[in-house]
Order: sequence, then C-alpha cells, then structure tokens
Amino acid sequence: MHELPAGLLRSDQIVTTQAVLEQHGRGESFSETALPDAVLFPESAEEVGRIVRFAAERRIPLTPVGANSSLEGHTVPLSGGFSVDLTRMDRILEVRPEDFLAVVEPGVPYRALNERTRHDGIFFPIDPGAHATLGGMVSTNASGTMAVRYGVTGDYVLGLQVVTADGTVRRLGNRARKSSAGYDLCALFTGAEGTLGIITEITVRLVGLPEAASAARVPFPDAGHATRFVTRLIQSGVPVARCEIIDARSVRAVNAYAGTDYPEQMTVFLEFHGNPAGVAADAALAEDLAAHAGALGFESAEQAAERERLWEARHKTFYATVADNPGKHSIVTDVAVPIASLPAAVTAALDDCEREGLAAYLVGHVGDGNFHLAIFFADDDAERRSAEDVTHRMVRRALAVGGTCTGEHGVGARKLRYMQEEHGEALDLMRRIKRTLDPAGIMNPGKKIPA
Amino acid sequence: MHELPAGLLRSDQIVTTQAVLEQHGRGESFSETALPDAVLFPESAEEVGRIVRFAAERRIPLTPVGANSSLEGHTVPLSGGFSVDLTRMDRILEVRPEDFLAVVEPGVPYRALNERTRHDGIFFPIDPGAHATLGGMVSTNASGTMAVRYGVTGDYVLGLQVVTADGTVRRLGNRARKSSAGYDLCALFTGAEGTLGIITEITVRLVGLPEAASAARVPFPDAGHATRFVTRLIQSGVPVARCEIIDARSVRAVNAYAGTDYPEQMTVFLEFHGNPAGVAADAALAEDLAAHAGALGFESAEQAAERERLWEARHKTFYATVADNPGKHSIVTDVAVPIASLPAAVTAALDDCEREGLAAYLVGHVGDGNFHLAIFFADDDAERRSAEDVTHRMVRRALAVGGTCTGEHGVGARKLRYMQEEHGEALDLMRRIKRTLDPAGIMNPGKKIPA
Repeated sequence: MHELPAGLLRSDQIVTTQAVLEQHGRGESFSETALPDAVLFPESAEEVGRIVRFAAERRIPLTPVGANSSLEGHTVPLSGGFSVDLTRMDRILEVRPEDFLAVVEPGVPYRALNERTRHDGIFFPIDPGAHATLGGMVSTNASGTMAVRYGVTGDYVLGLQVVTADGTVRRLGNRARKSSAGYDLCALFTGAEGTLGIITEITVRLVGLPEAASAARVPFPDAGHATRFVTRLIQSGVPVARCEIIDARSVRAVNAYAGTDYPEQMTVFLEFHGNPAGVAADAALAEDLAAHAGALGFESAEQAAERERLWEARHKTFYATVADNPGKHSIVTDVAVPIASLPAAVTAALDDCEREGLAAYLVGHVGDGNFHLAIFFADDDAERRSAEDVTHRMVRRALAVGGTCTGEHGVGARKLRYMQEEHGEALDLMRRIKRTLDPAGIMNPGKKIPA
Repeated sequence: MHELPAGLLRSDQIVTTQAVLEQHGRGESFSETALPDAVLFPESAEEVGRIVRFAAERRIPLTPVGANSSLEGHTVPLSGGFSVDLTRMDRILEVRPEDFLAVVEPGVPYRALNERTRHDGIFFPIDPGAHATLGGMVSTNASGTMAVRYGVTGDYVLGLQVVTADGTVRRLGNRARKSSAGYDLCALFTGAEGTLGIITEITVRLVGLPEAASAARVPFPDAGHATRFVTRLIQSGVPVARCEIIDARSVRAVNAYAGTDYPEQMTVFLEFHGNPAGVAADAALAEDLAAHAGALGFESAEQAAERERLWEARHKTFYATVADNPGKHSIVTDVAVPIASLPAAVTAALDDCEREGLAAYLVGHVGDGNFHLAIFFADDDAERRSAEDVTHRMVRRALAVGGTCTGEHGVGARKLRYMQEEHGEALDLMRRIKRTLDPAGIMNPGKKIPA
C-alpha cells in the first residue's frame, strides 16, 4: 500500500474499505478481478494533477473509473495502484444553447446532461445505456442506439481538459464546430481508455431535438431475414435514426425483467427523426422494404411515451440477461463489420453458439454493422473455454472482412490479444505515442495497447 | 541538389525543369516561394517508401503535394529538398456500393470519385472546391459547403495507408463504420498536413445521394442581417445541407468570371436534402425565418441543373476574385467561431477592412461558424502590412471567443504563429508526437507545428 502524503486529498477522498476496493476491483462481464490499493475521489483537475504527479514520481499505476459499466475489463486495476474515481466530478459547468455546446465534468452521466438541456430543445445524442458518464463515454468512444444517424461520442467532443502522465493540466480543442489547426488531440484522447491521461473536463457539441420522431417494431422469422432487411434499409439511404436488432431470447429476458410484453421474436427496432412530413415518408419507405424482406409485421409507435418505453426496455437488455442467468459468468462483447457483411457475421456467430450448446443473446446497433453477443456460462472450465472460443471466432471473422474487434465497447483487457492482428504495423505507432505521452507507463497499464 | 541513386525511380519520375520546380515552389494566396531540388512523381506506396527511406538517411526534407490548391503555404518547400507530387497516384482502386465505401489513391480528385460513384446512388459529400485531391483533403481535414450537414473529411476516413518517416508502409483503420479498437491514428494523420507521413491510400465512407434536394438564394441588406439569419436558422434545428454566405463584391466577381447574372447583394445560399416532403417542409421553415430576419427575397432553385449552376458559381469564387485583381497579391484565409459569435466576428472583420481601405471579399460556410476573407493588395509594404494586420486581428478575435485560427484551410506556414496561443500546453503534446513519429524532422518541415 502506497502512503498518501498529508494534503494530497482530504481523508474522505481516500477510501480503502474492503467493499469499495472490491467494487472497484471488478468490471461487468469480465471475470478477472484485482484490488486497488486505494480508491481516490478527486473533485477538481488540480487534485487529479496532484494525484498524477505523486503517482508519476513513485510509478504507481492509476486506473480512472466512472460509472464502471465497462464490459471489457477497462477499469479493473490489474497492476494495483490507485483507482481514480471521477464520479464526484459531476458538475455541468456550462450550457450554451445558442452555441449548441455544454461543458461538463467527466462524472456527469449523459442522461443528467440531457435532463438539463431538454427544455432548451437540444440534446447529446449518444446513448450507450447503463448510467454511463461522459468521461467514460469519451474514454471508450462509446456509441449506442443512435450512432447510425448521429455518429459516435468522438464526433461530439469539441474540447477536453486532460491531466497527462506528468501531472500537467492541458486543454485540447476549442469551441468551434470544426477546426484544421494542430493535430486532433481530442480524437487521440477519445477512445484512449485512460492510457494517455485522465479527462477532467469535456466540451461537447449538442444537436437540436428532432421536431418529430416515429418508431417501429419489426419482427422477422430469423436473424438472416432481419439482418438482410437492415442491410437493404441502410443501402436504400433512408436516414434511420435508430436501427437495432434484438433476438427472441433477449426480448423474453427484457419482458421478465422490465415487465414489458413485447412479442418474443427476432425483432428490428427502428426510429426516424425529422420534420413530421419527412418522418412519415421515411417510415413508409421502411415499411415497404420490410414487407419485401419477409417481415412478420410493422408496428409503429408514434407517441413519445410509447417510444421511450421501447428504448428504455432496449437499454435494459444487459441487466435483463444477467438477471436471466443467476450465478453465471458472462462474456458480453461486440464487433463491427462492413454493412454488407452483417448478415453472414451474425448468422455465423449464432450458429456457432448453437453448435457449442451455449445460451447466447444477440443485440446490436446493426445499422452500423455493429452487434453484441452475450454468452452466459457456469463456473466450469470447459464451458468458459467454449464461450471464449465462440467470441474469439466471432472477432476473427470480423477482422477477416475488414471489420474491427470492437465497434464500441473498447479494447479494455479482453481485446488486447487482437491489437496486433487488427493493427499490424500501426500498433508500433500506437506504442510510440503511448511511450512518449506516458513514459513511466502509469496510466491504466495493461489496457488498450499490449506492452 | 541531392543525387538520386539509380533504381529509386524511373527518370521520367524525377523532374528538375525550371517550370516544374517553380510550379511546386509556390502556393495559392501565399507570397513566399522556395524551389525544391527536384519534384518526384511516385506511382506506388512502395516507391514512396523508397523515397522516404532515401530521404531519411540523408535528412532531406520532403513536401507532399496534390492539386497544390492550398491557400496557406502548405506545399511550399520552405527548406528545399524534394516535392513529392502524388498526382500520378490517381487510381480509384475499389468501390463497394453495398458497403458505402471506396478505396482510392491520394491523387484522385474528389470530383472524379463522385463521377464514378454517382450511378450507384452514393457520393462523397465533402466539396472544398478547386480540383482538390483526396490526399490533400485528408491532409488538411478539408470541408466545404456541405460540412454543416455531412461533417468534414475526417468524418469519412475509415482507413489510410501511410508511409511514415522511417519509410515503412502502414495501414491505419479498417472498413467498419465505427471502431473503438486502438488509438484513432486515422484522425491523427487527418489534418497533419504531411508532417507525420505521406498518405498513399485512403478508404473513404460514402453516403446515399439524397432522394430530393432544393436550394435557395436569400439576399440581405448587409452582413449583420445575413449572419443573424444564419445563426437563427442553425439554432432552429432545420437540417440544412448547405448554408453559405457570399458578399456583393464576390457575387460581382463571380458574375464577371463565370458569366452568371446573380443579383449583386449580400446573399445566403441554402440547400436542403432529404425526401421530397421533408425537403419542402425544411425549405418552408427556412423561408419563414428569412422573412422574419429581414431577407430581401427567397429565390428557390428546385431543378438539379439550376442548383448545380449555383454551386459551380460558388466554387469559382476564389478564381473569380483573383481574376478581379490582376497583378495583385492576396491573402485568402479562414477562421471558425462558435455559431452565436458569427455575426459579430463577420461584421468586425468587414469593418476592419473598410477602415484600412482594403478591398475584401467575404465568403463562408457560415452554418459551421466558418468564414473566409480574401484580401488583395498591391506589391507595397504598407498595403501588405495592412492586409496582414486585418487577418491577424480576425484570428485573434476568433481565438478570444473560443474559436480556431483555421476552420478548414489548415495551418500551413501562415498560421504557425497562432499555434501557441490556440493550443497552449497542448502544443507540447503535438511536438512530442511529431518528434516520436518523425525524429529527423524531414516530413514537411516548417508547417503545422512550430519548431
């Protein structure tokens, strides 16, 4: 245990109780655990700077953490040291509706930001679910159900304040909507998973709430039909705002968990945003395409309450599947592929699970070619290996068609093994950047970039 | 002059004729010139690798160049060495309409790509004008008239092949629409202006051609009214696809140059994309807002030919203003500010020009808060200083409101002086990245990052 000097933080900001250490010692859907020496709760960039300078001198590993809803082991302090919990830095510092931007601390949940900006008619359109904080979302370049229309977290980062590995507080970016000045360091720190520094402030771009929206639930006989419909819908150019797949097993788990009564079928959920006339035309075209693609129906949800209930249910999928498998371990992971490769990729993954006799849940932001598989298994070596093999083959197939080992979860610790295969000669550049920005290797070691 | 060894390139790929050296020794709207020792015309990544390895051993500066339409001195070989002209690498290697992507060599003009993909109903929506090549556009993170709807070049870069300063050919990115794997090196090399390596291949994302489009020409009595309308239009959330301002003097120059007859007034050009019903509703809302904002009219252009003529004319503005000022020097530069700061920024810049007695032309992608000033001056020290002072004050005012010294032109050599002020402590990180990726400093020295 590293002794913290007096004056570094107040005593209530340094927590070493077993429950809190354990809570910070594990992630979701990631079985390896490791306790930090202490959990630190800084309340300002200046305090983060002090922590980092102290750690840099003594080469103490630092693992930043927000909501701790990562699914790939990002926040497990595999080398010990301090967990730096940023959830007390949860102030919305500024909202400028007239400039379509907000400035927040990293511990602000995206839902809290949207609560605050809603009455100004603007919102932050990235919704990864859980209680994700903006710091965590930037650190993993999170996306969610609306990425097909609005893009990913990185597309909304105008500026960052970061504490780099030498303890210096630096501002990156600006408040203009676009810039060609300097290297795009905001993009470099976005998705860096805390391995280049700790984010202490974020300036995000906001967008106007759509004047009108309409949602639809479109059931299909199987994954092949559903994903072929999605591919055709995207290729038709209809500007869909959400395009999600969820399989019958997941719908059943959600119904049980959330008290909903959605028909338990392979389902594509859609949403359209725009003005009323445009949205109606988009939905009509989608309905036509669905009918031709073998859909079993097309249930529209025009009312806001109905749509919200639908997306709330969708966002509960992960916790619903966990509740559906008490006492089991899970691997919940994602890949993304070029859109035309989606049907084959999804079908192959589901077939593989069936061959292995594994209970898998399929959900996906399929409009982006991005899908998730949740596999639950007993504490049994053979079952675990089987689950790992299935996800391994899913990743290898994604890479073979020019896809990526993770569309939105991030690398964490689980996907480290794919970095060489995915990036090849580019991995060496990433290592050089890591080394030059974090020479002592204290920033979230063992994540993102293999040593 | 550095002697090239036999076998490095064919003799017709090494040009040292005075005319070609001079052509590569100057940029547009940038008065400093400097001759390269030779202009090299590689035809493959492998040849670029050979050039870079040769140059790295001897510390010979390399200045990559495409269409050479840069306005800020990017391509002027200020330290001599070789100009690496990539315009012979102009093959469209692959178009995959079903995956919405294309793979091109850096010398492909964006217009040639759009010619090729048009019949598949897809396009690359970034249009900086001139005969810009995709390599140059990636290197400056170019944008253009449709950025307000579609974003900037960097938003469309899925993958790059680059030759780094050690001569290694590396692939960055992948073919999925989104990824959270690894550091975002595509974003780092996008906008790096050739200072981190030479781009030899680009995988770009394409989007569906809109089903319907409608344009409008909206004249205003002055810049204040016009920019306040733009600010309100953007704040209203109408998804405008293009939103350009052009002043009366520029319209006059375009009319004379292009044979058009647009009324010579301060004008906002708009375009809307979507389905027919949606576009009509968007245009109607914009017309209503324009009337309330003091517009002198609202001329719609529904026909494709009429719209194309309008945007062709807009894209000729730069050459029209040059033709309007024979024998004069020019400074054509851009800034971007948060959208609410746009009216004050534009008005202050125009007032400043008037006070200094300078003939300035205003055009701008104002929907992004991005505008350009073209100032022409005689070969006279006092006039030149006056033009430089005006642009200097325009940049300082942009930085004071959280804007950027360049929204889309890039830093080149002209904006180097603002890097410290704009980036502060972040500049040190950029320098460290530059040093670790280009330790000998051979990649486009004297650009982007001050030494």
